[in-house]
Parts: sequence; structure tokens; C-alpha cells
Amino acid sequence: MKPIVKIISLGTLLSAVVPGYSQRPVTGPAAFVNPFIGTGAVNGGLSGNNYPGATVPFGMVQLSPDTREAPDWGTASGYDYNDKTIAGFSHTHLSGTGVAELFDLLVMPTTGAVTTVAGEPDKPGSGYRSAFSHQQETARPGYYQVKLLDYDINAELTATTHAGFHRYTYPRNSKGHVVIDLNHSLNKGSWSTRIIQSQIRVVNNHTIEGFRIITGWAKMRKVYFHIQFNKPVVRYQLVNDNTVYTGNKVVNGSNVRAVFDFDTQQGFTLLVKAGISPVSVENARQNLAQEITAWNFDKTADDAAALWNKELQKINIDGSEQQKQIFYTALYHTFLQPNTLSDVNGAYMASDYTQGKTKGTHYSTFSLWDTYRAAHPLYTLLQQTRTADFVNSMLNQYRSYGYLPVWQLWGQENYCMIGNHSIPVLVDAVMKGIPGVEVEKVYEAIKNSSLISHPNSPFQVWEQYGYMPENIQSQSVSITLEMAYDDWCVAQLAKKLGKTEDYNRFQRRSQYYEHLFNSATRFFQPKDEKGNWITPFDPYKYGSNGGNPFTEGNAWQYYWYVPHNMPHLVQLTGGDNAFVTKLDSFFTHSHTTGEKNDNASGFIGQYAHGNEPSHHVTYLYNYAGQPWKTQYYAAKVMNELYNTSSSGYAGNEDCGEMSAWYVFSALGFYPVNPASGIYVIGSPQLKRAAIQLGAGKTFEVRTRKQSDKDIYIQSATLNGKPYTRTWIKHSDVLAGGVLEFVMGEQPNTNWGTGVADRPINSSF
Amino acid sequence: MKPIVKIISLGTLLSAVVPGYSQRPVTGPAAFVNPFIGTGAVNGGLSGNNYPGATVPFGMVQLSPDTREAPDWGTASGYDYNDKTIAGFSHTHLSGTGVAELFDLLVMPTTGAVTTVAGEPDKPGSGYRSAFSHQQETARPGYYQVKLLDYDINAELTATTHAGFHRYTYPRNSKGHVVIDLNHSLNKGSWSTRIIQSQIRVVNNHTIEGFRIITGWAKMRKVYFHIQFNKPVVRYQLVNDNTVYTGNKVVNGSNVRAVFDFDTQQGFTLLVKAGISPVSVENARQNLAQEITAWNFDKTADDAAALWNKELQKINIDGSEQQKQIFYTALYHTFLQPNTLSDVNGAYMASDYTQGKTKGTHYSTFSLWDTYRAAHPLYTLLQQTRTADFVNSMLNQYRSYGYLPVWQLWGQENYCMIGNHSIPVLVDAVMKGIPGVEVEKVYEAIKNSSLISHPNSPFQVWEQYGYMPENIQSQSVSITLEMAYDDWCVAQLAKKLGKTEDYNRFQRRSQYYEHLFNSATRFFQPKDEKGNWITPFDPYKYGSNGGNPFTEGNAWQYYWYVPHNMPHLVQLTGGDNAFVTKLDSFFTHSHTTGEKNDNASGFIGQYAHGNEPSHHVTYLYNYAGQPWKTQYYAAKVMNELYNTSSSGYAGNEDCGEMSAWYVFSALGFYPVNPASGIYVIGSPQLKRAAIQLGAGKTFEVRTRKQSDKDIYIQSATLNGKPYTRTWIKHSDVLAGGVLEFVMGEQPNTNWGTGVADRPINSSF
Repeated sequence: MKPIVKIISLGTLLSAVVPGYSQRPVTGPAAFVNPFIGTGAVNGGLSGNNYPGATVPFGMVQLSPDTREAPDWGTASGYDYNDKTIAGFSHTHLSGTGVAELFDLLVMPTTGAVTTVAGEPDKPGSGYRSAFSHQQETARPGYYQVKLLDYDINAELTATTHAGFHRYTYPRNSKGHVVIDLNHSLNKGSWSTRIIQSQIRVVNNHTIEGFRIITGWAKMRKVYFHIQFNKPVVRYQLVNDNTVYTGNKVVNGSNVRAVFDFDTQQGFTLLVKAGISPVSVENARQNLAQEITAWNFDKTADDAAALWNKELQKINIDGSEQQKQIFYTALYHTFLQPNTLSDVNGAYMASDYTQGKTKGTHYSTFSLWDTYRAAHPLYTLLQQTRTADFVNSMLNQYRSYGYLPVWQLWGQENYCMIGNHSIPVLVDAVMKGIPGVEVEKVYEAIKNSSLISHPNSPFQVWEQYGYMPENIQSQSVSITLEMAYDDWCVAQLAKKLGKTEDYNRFQRRSQYYEHLFNSATRFFQPKDEKGNWITPFDPYKYGSNGGNPFTEGNAWQYYWYVPHNMPHLVQLTGGDNAFVTKLDSFFTHSHTTGEKNDNASGFIGQYAHGNEPSHHVTYLYNYAGQPWKTQYYAAKVMNELYNTSSSGYAGNEDCGEMSAWYVFSALGFYPVNPASGIYVIGSPQLKRAAIQLGAGKTFEVRTRKQSDKDIYIQSATLNGKPYTRTWIKHSDVLAGGVLEFVMGEQPNTNWGTGVADRPINSSF
Repeated sequence: MKPIVKIISLGTLLSAVVPGYSQRPVTGPAAFVNPFIGTGAVNGGLSGNNYPGATVPFGMVQLSPDTREAPDWGTASGYDYNDKTIAGFSHTHLSGTGVAELFDLLVMPTTGAVTTVAGEPDKPGSGYRSAFSHQQETARPGYYQVKLLDYDINAELTATTHAGFHRYTYPRNSKGHVVIDLNHSLNKGSWSTRIIQSQIRVVNNHTIEGFRIITGWAKMRKVYFHIQFNKPVVRYQLVNDNTVYTGNKVVNGSNVRAVFDFDTQQGFTLLVKAGISPVSVENARQNLAQEITAWNFDKTADDAAALWNKELQKINIDGSEQQKQIFYTALYHTFLQPNTLSDVNGAYMASDYTQGKTKGTHYSTFSLWDTYRAAHPLYTLLQQTRTADFVNSMLNQYRSYGYLPVWQLWGQENYCMIGNHSIPVLVDAVMKGIPGVEVEKVYEAIKNSSLISHPNSPFQVWEQYGYMPENIQSQSVSITLEMAYDDWCVAQLAKKLGKTEDYNRFQRRSQYYEHLFNSATRFFQPKDEKGNWITPFDPYKYGSNGGNPFTEGNAWQYYWYVPHNMPHLVQLTGGDNAFVTKLDSFFTHSHTTGEKNDNASGFIGQYAHGNEPSHHVTYLYNYAGQPWKTQYYAAKVMNELYNTSSSGYAGNEDCGEMSAWYVFSALGFYPVNPASGIYVIGSPQLKRAAIQLGAGKTFEVRTRKQSDKDIYIQSATLNGKPYTRTWIKHSDVLAGGVLEFVMGEQPNTNWGTGVADRPINSSF
């Protein structure tokens, strides 16, 4: 745990000893954000794969320290709180993913007679790395600071949407340098990552430019940059491979680095501004010029904090200090992405590698298997304008690929995970009436994305067999369950648009999950193409990402995935009691086969909060008339699997999804079916939470007598009237008002238990 | 040998037996072009690495059959006359290079129940390959035809600048298919070649589109396409890896192929039009729409022939049938590239991977170490408008990389070979007053290209040592000699522009070759960085492309490389007699060390016409007063090392360079120093050759009593006045007129032997 108060007092301390360091107090909800949450496991546990660096909401730039040599699954953000050295500050990062990628434009200040940039200088034990200490490291939204101990340099970072701003305070009597390394990536050796071409150009003694073209997890990315220094470069070296190009103004190659020397004999503060663009150096220059006009680091940092407060104050909460830290850090993490991919002039690299142009903002980083569940529903509530841009950005991929994103990075599909969960996101946006979403275009895209086969989506197999036979399509049970849900979403929009034939087709497909339900074992199980159950079957056995019927989970965890027809799942299970019993078993059976998928973590019995398939399951007791058990487990997850330490998440934070679960759950409700317009009520955790709906309208959730023990709903009112439903409509939330809960230590086994109180399938 | 008469009569024969095949007689100089010259070695010798397919002058599309599995050094064009099977027809090829690259958009017609496109279907023994026979194969400028024996399909190809046009005549009672293979490349396993992403999209039953992004020798190429069929597709399969996407309209991936079925039960002729673009599918569509409006294959083929005649008739010759075939095929080969890289709307992918726009045409494929010698000088004579575009295209790389091209492919530098020989090309263009060339921009580019170090051009080493020390920069002797020449070119333009300081600097550098001249051995030899000669030294020992002081040659071959100051080389050698003796030795010493570089071939003693370092050497006797020996050896090379067989070149044809040597030499003069405005006179071979200078003006070279034996100049007149100079100015040629030679069997040891008759260093 790294409480915010410690950070602030540390900052005050530093301001006394570090020349040039000035503590800028943060006010508003941003003050409760601790960017170190989720950045490093404690005692070998799990973290969130988050980064602590400086960024603004939904920005293109994430300027953050890279501590890893080569990230493994646990440190894809480049930073691990357990690491002891920093390679430098690169301008792009992913938050919470399981694959390491980006890390563009590494900048590192150093001192000393010589800085080595030959060999593999970003690796530990060589080159320009520096030790650092968490005692001399701070972070807040839009700002990061660290003392580079090997060089006695205080490094501070802030950012705008398209630019990074660095402030390096060098010690007196030092020889000051800045290293740029375009060969730096923490993804080497994976995904055939390779620099295709790169360049550093010295424009004048205050300005450098360049680019790199790189292939990796994203098939081809172009990152152009324009950098300005506020002090003159007095000497520099440009390097490709091990060749030093002395006196050159430019160097090209696939292993390009540079060292810039500054006259820091008396010590000084160097400011470095860096704009980036996926289109051109000229656009990088424009991006920087538009966003950072002055050499005023503190103003840019203040602006970044203000941007964060503008977004974070969309939910105003009362609660404990710890609740506020967890809640606002979670909300912060949900707003880190999707990431801007267009320049200030609207240009971007389209999904077919042509140059696109948008009037709005073009976004990418769509980790949809994760984020369709709660992050995107949260955006439809808090980010309506951006949601339209998200939809339009995904439609760009549809126009190019013929189908919508599965997992899209820098405009390119990587087919990570399964399903086509852009479909619920788009259908939800239409159903909720998000302005700027063109319904017919969305319908064409979701329909074709459900008919045009692509990796893990062989639709001809789907329609031929009515399920995925494992011997034809691996991950067959998980895909069957998730595809049925996506089909239900298509059917709902078809129905709304009066496309009866399509509705019937997709509604029929949405029921295919039944074909893998084994009523003998009461599990969803794999079949072969002849319709035979594949044996032996062990519901505790894990699959990963292929070669097994289940995806990053087991049959227990996938059992609950019929979000569009939970009453039918209750019925298949054997009715209310059997369903509750099975849920009870799920949350208590600790049996394992000895192996598990690395993504499964944060266990409560078989429930694994560290990965997404479990995320809606605590809320399912409501469908069988025992909402107090939902309240119990929702509270348990919030209280036990989220905290304020660097290990504050129970698994990959996954581009906002783990955080969005918390935000909804703390408010007291969760979108079990994210395209239904229905939230299912759990255990509200905050004294008061006011969602700002625009034009001064709010929807407020209040609790009376809430505490870590008072987790059970005793009664509720909506706008003063008694409320016994265990769910609430999105439209009720949008209408504004007050939802008040009276909480208590003991379950109220009467509240919300009527059949009419059970969540319905859809409000649309 | 494959005489043109045979080709024509074969065509006539085919027209009687192959349904749909119509012989279009070719008139004009194009009738003398035999595209099979240079396509395959005879008896294990060398060929030119040329392709026989259909293309127009300087086009983007080279639609040609690929016969090779994986080209090695000898078959980089994809086609080897010795091969027995054809994989298909891909739309882009290089002519005469030593590295295999391009091969985009393979199209192959097949018949039969099933066409396999799984596995590696373009490889011999699998998939869709077909046997073929030279007995049923024809080619002429802009047209190629072959009978695919496995399928009984007659395939004909023609092209426009940006589009290919296929005519496939299927047999009756066949099931007809067309295969598209976007994974086809004959460069796999080299240069880390990899498909980054590709797509085939079925737009409707007559139209398909797509693209591929590929990394290889060219670091990153984007090739978009738009294909139209004149008959409906009745069925198709789209494939990625081994997954068949039945019923899909689109497939994406890195191993994408497709099979399109046509209802050919009754047999028919299928027309296939394919536009390509390096920018977008939309541009590929525009390119096709602008260039091929009708479904009239013969018209497009006729237009292609007409375009060739328009270019080829720029030199009108009288001579023997064989001379005409060799001459016009050579001229044809010189006009195959540089290749158009911009679309009809002027868009192109710039050297920094942004989207460029030109008002003229943007070109690439600059094999400059080869082509600066004779091909580019020929363009300044025959292709003045294009020369300005070549210059401006090279300047685009300068703006991006900071220096001009060394070897540029698809706008990207690959640093193949040594020197910076875009400099003589640009200086020559300025000195000759080519319209549309901006002098100051050229000067900035050539100066910076001589100061900004890059691979094989470490200018700080150059200026520090006054030569390249072999232990610091390998290929040191070759680079020293060639760099000195490039520096001389910079000096000349500096002088013209009154930049005295620059002139002095580069003039001084142009003399650095002296520092490697060993007066004890009278060879240019390598030194180390301390100035010591590196021993042992063997003038017969070959270097290749690194690790040795000489580049693809030996000290004998590099001895002659002081093109900017031959009188000084004569002096260093010990005067006229010593120089002549050394030349005599060069052409007669057959000693070898047992090894040689593969590029060295076409030997006359140590002289190796198969590679460029020797190319000017036959002309050097003129500098020592014995022009008849130049006449002897120039005639010997023409008569013995060029012929009309598939093995008609003595080595890599090298993007027009081997051909340009022949064109100049047959005319009777050659640009020993390609940026001097001086041609050195050899042994004119043609009865009459009239160079069309525009506006009806011609420069005519006539010979009297020329034959294979009458190779010696007895006397000459220029515009009727006696002419004894062994050189002629470019400006004299441009002025028009008649240069007439009287030839004879015996040397006239008086003509051209006066000191005043010796070539001067420069006419500018």
C-alpha cells in the first residue's frame, strides 16, 4: 500500500532538497488517484500490469518509466514496482494488458563523462540504466517524478494528448546528457518484433525529429516524433548498431540511438517537449505546437491534472480515504484508454494502412473481450461523446477488414482472445441512443462481423453444427457461449430495425449454447463434430488460448455465461435451489487439478476475479431470489481483492475492465448483460455517489449505515419510493434522482426476493 | 539464341491452333526486341537476370511469369529460361538485379476438379504450378504468351504503367479457375522477408480488391490492388494459412490466397484486369480506370507496343538483323526502369513512409552503382523529362534520409554496393541543363550526401585520413576511388555556383585516390589507419561486398578508376607507354588465384565485362594515344559478350547498365566520366544511327565499310569537317549533325593520336 498522504508529504520533503522540484498540490478527485496501484505484485502475488507514468484521459502519449528488461506476462506495462532500475521514459504504454507492446521513443537523462549506447544499452547492467528508489518517486494523474540515483538527476514527466513534457534537474558539476533510443522495446523476442526502419534527425541545437516503423504484436506501427529542448545541445552522437556517426545531422537504420550533451557544469533544469504522431513528423510537430505552447512544465502538469479532474468528477463520491483512493484510481484506469490514434488535424493511419481523416477523434486500443463487460457500459454512462467516436473508430476496421475488432491495437487486429465483443458495445451504444452513432452502419457491421469468418470465428461451422465442435474449432465451449451472446445482441438490433428474418436467424443462433449443455453433469461441455461428448471431462481443468475447450478458465468459470437468458440457465441448472446451490459450490469449492491458467487468479473457491469470465457471477444470486448472497460476494470481492497497494488488483487490470467492475460494484450495480440496459444490484459501498449526467442533472446513490460489515441491503428507495427490484434500468439512471439503500450487518432475506424483483433479460 | 523471326512464326502457328489467340504483328523498332535475351544461362554460363514479361517503359507493373522456387543470385527476375514450370504471373519484377525482390500479386489460371492452395502452393511439385514449353511461349515488348501445359490454358499478358491485363483461354470441357496468391514471393528466407498483413476482398462477382504489406529487401512495401474479371465468378474460396473461409467476402492474414471458379464448361476466354498502387485500393482502382477502359486486350497490347516504339525510335538504326535485335533489346532493357512509384493522381509512399504527392511522376528502382555509368547518361540524352523526375524523386529521399540514394527500391534505401553515385547523376543533369532540375536544391543534396555519414560512407574517416583505412572501413580501396570521383562531381557544381570554399574542399577530397597509390607496385592498395600498406597484397585476389579492400573485383579491375583525371592516372602509371603496357596486360593476363567474385564474369584477361568496374576500361587507350586498341577491345566486347540468346549478357544486366554500355558503344562513344559532358570514341558498329533530339533535329552516326572485321577507325568527319578528336562533347551531339566514320580492317595508328585528340577531363 502506498497511501496518497505519504506521496504528498514525500513531495513536500523533496521540494526542500531537490533543486527545481516543486510540489504542485493536486485538488479534486485526482488527489485520490494513486498511479502506483496495480504496478507490482507483493510477495509474488499479482498486480494489474499498470504503469505509473504521466498521461491524460484517452491520450496517445503515456510517458512512463520502463524498468523491465523483457516483460513477461506480469509486467506488460514496462514498469514493475519490484524492480530496482529504470531504463528510461518511453512515450507509449498499455495499461493492464497481458502482452507487452508499444514503448516508443525512449528518452533518458544521464550524467558522467561517457554514456554508452552501444550494445543493448537498455538492458540491466549495461548502458544508461539508473537505480531508483520508491522513497524518491512520486506520481499523480498527469505527473510522474523519480530521482535517478546513478546520476543524481530529478526527472519529472507530464503529458498532453499527443505530447510528453520532461523536466530534468541535473546536479551541479555534472556533464549532462539525454539519451534517445529508438531500438528500445520490451517486446523483443516475441511476436517477431522488429524495427523496420528508424531515424533521428538533428534539426537545430534545440530540436530533433525522427520516426520508427516497427512490426510486432501490432503488425505495423509508424511513430513519428518532434522533440524540443529549452537549452542548446552542445554536442551529440548519433548511433546505428555500433557505428557512431559523429557530426551527422541524421542517422537512419534499425538500431538507432543518440546521446545529446548539455552544458550542465553549473547544474540546471532541462525541459524536453516531445510530440508524437502515427502519420508524419509534420503532424508530430503540429501536435506539440497545438498542445504545449510555453516552456511551462508546471502549467502543463496542472492542465493534465485539470483534465483528469474534469473526467473524474463525473462521479462525485463520499467514502473513506481508502475507498476514494481505490475508486478514483479505478476510474482513472478506466479512462486511460481507448487511446487517441488521430492527430490534432484529424489524420490517422487507417486499418488498411492508408491515411485516414476524421472530424472527431480516432481511437484504438480495444481490448474488447475484457472491456465490453463493464468498461464500455461505463463509457456509455460517463463518456457519451467519446463512445460515438469509439464506435466510429471500430467501424473503420469493419470497412477495412470486413469485420469489427476483436482486439485492436493501433488500428490493427491481433485476434487476441475470442468472441466478437465489439458487437455488444455497438448494440449497447445504439440501444442507449448515444448521439453520433449511425444505426444502419452499425447494423451492417455487426451483421457482417457475425457472418464473415475469421480466426476463432468460423461461422460456417457455427451454423452447420449449432455449436463449435472442439476437433474443428478449439476453445469450443467458451466460443460457443460467447458467440451465442454476441448473436443475441445482433438479434436485438435486428428486431429494433424490423429485420425479422435476421432477427430469427440470430435469435436461433443465440440459443446454441444449449447444444453444449450436458444435463447429466450439468456443465457446458465440449462435443466433437459428430455430437459426442468429449471425454474425459474435468470441470476443474483449465484451458488457456487454444488446444482446450475453455479459454483462460475452466468449466466451472464458464458455466455462468448465458448473460442474455439467465432465467433459462437457472432452469437448465434445475431451478432456483439447484442454481443457488451450484453458485454456493462455485464460491466454495477450492479443489484444483494442480494446474491453472496464469490469468486465473483472485480466487474465491472456483471464482477467479483476476480474469473476466467470472466478473458477472457474484451478481447471479439475484436471478434465483437470494440477492443477499450477491451482496455478500460482491462486497467480499471489493473488500478483499482490491486495495491501495502496488498489488491492488487481483490480476491483469485489462485496459480498465477490472477497474470498471469496481466502479460499478461500489456504486451498487453491475451490467451482467452489458447490452441489456439493465444493471443488477449488488452491495453499494459508498456513503454517497453522484453521477453527473450533464446539464446539472445527477443520479445519486446513497447508503445509510454502510461499513465493511454493513454490506447487506435492508431496504431501498428510488426517488423516495420503496424499491425492491434487484436491478435498475439504465434509463432510470439517466433520468436522474436518488437511489438510497439502508444497509445492515445481517442479510435481509426478504428484500428483492420476489419473482418480480428478479432482473429481466433486457429493458430495450 | 531465339531469333525474332521464330517468335513471329510461332505466333502465327499458334493462332491456327489455340482458340482465342490472335497474333498481333509488331512493327517499328519494337519488332526487334527479344525479351528472352538475358533470361537464362546457356550451359551453366551467365545470363542477365532479365524477365520476359509484359511491361511498358518505366512502368510500375512488370507482369511476368515466375518459374523459380527461390531465386538465387542468378535468377532474381523470377524467370529462368532453363526452368520447366511456371508458378504464375506476378505483377512486379526487377530487371537484371543480383537480389530477388517484388513478385507482388501472383495470378495463375488453372483447370480441374480441385486446385490446391494449401501448404506452399507456389513451390514446384505442389499446388497450382504448370509445365510449359518454349515451343509454346512468345514475348514482345508489352506482351507475353505461354501455353500452360498442365491445364491446356493459353495465357497472354499485357500491361500499362499501373495495370496488368491477362487473357486466359481455357479449353472446352474444363473447370476453370484463377488462383490469387498474396503470400507468393521468391525472396523468402532472405532479407527477413515476411508478409506483415494482406487481404483479398470479393467486391462483387466481377471484382476483387486487396493489398499486401511486406518487409524484405525493401524495408516496407504496400501493394494495393483492384482486379476485374470480364466473366462472373461462380464460386470461390478464400484461404489464410490452411483455413478455408467458405462464403466469406474477405480474408485477412499473412498467408492469404484465393481460388475463383468460372463456368468454363464450354471453354472461353477470360479477361483479367489488375491495377496496383503503393498507396490505396482506391488509387489502384483509379489507376486501372484511367489506363484500361475497355475489355480490349489487343488494343492494350497494341498501345503497349506503341509506347515502346515511341521510346525505341529515339534512336533509329541501320544494321544487321542481329545488331538490331541486340541494340533494341538493350535499349528496351534500359527503359524498363527507373520504375514509376506514383499513382495516376500523383500520390506515392514517400521515403519516410508518409504519403507524398507529385505533379510529375515519382520514380524508384535506382541501382545507382550500376546505372550512373552509362544508363543515366543515356537518359539525359533520350529521356530529359523523365531525368528531371528521376532527380526530383531522388531528392525526396534526400529530404527524408538526409542523403541521396545509394540503391533505392520502392523509395527506400538498402545501401547495396558503395559510393554515392546519385551525385554524378544529379551533377550531370544540372551541367547538361536538364529542364526542371533545381540547381540549388541539387547542390544542397549532393553536398550533404557527401558530409552526412551513412553505411559505407564514413565521411569523418575520409576527411581525417584522406583515404579509407581498411581496418576502419572495409572495401577501402574501392570506396576511396569511387568516393574521390563523387567528390570531384560535387566540386564541379560548387565551382559552377561560385562556392569557392566548397570547391576547394571537395576538389581536395577528389584527389584522395593518390593516397592509396603504391608507386612501388603501381597498384591502388589498402592501407591501415597508421598509413602502412596492408600485406600481403595480391592484385588478382577478389573482394566481394565487405571484408576485403575491393568490391566485387580485384586490384587489377579497380586500377582504372580515376575517371575524373585520367591524365593523372597515366602519369602515375609511368607515362603513355607504361599505361598502354599496363592496359595490354590487363586485357591479356588470365592468371587467377583460383577464386573470384560471382559478379566478375565476361573475362578478357582481367577485364570482366560482367560487372561494372571494368565498363569504361576499353576506352582508356585513347588517353595514351593508342585509340585503335580501344577500338579493338570495344568491338571485341560488343561482338563476343553480347548475343541474342537467353544468355545474351555476360553477367547481371543490372537495371539497364549492361545494355546502356552496348547502346553507347554501338553508337561509337561512351561516357568514361559520366558527369563530364564528354563521350570517348570507341568502335562504332552500326551502319547508321540517328538519335532523335526533338523538334525534328537528329544527331546521326554513320559508318562506311563497317563489319565484324572492319572495326578500326580510318578517318572521321563531323558535319563534313575532318574530325580527329577521340572524344566528342555532349553539346556537339545535342547540336545535331552527322558524325561519319570510315572504318577498316587494319588499325589507323595515326587517327586520333595527337595529344590534342586525347579526351579532356570535362567540357563543363
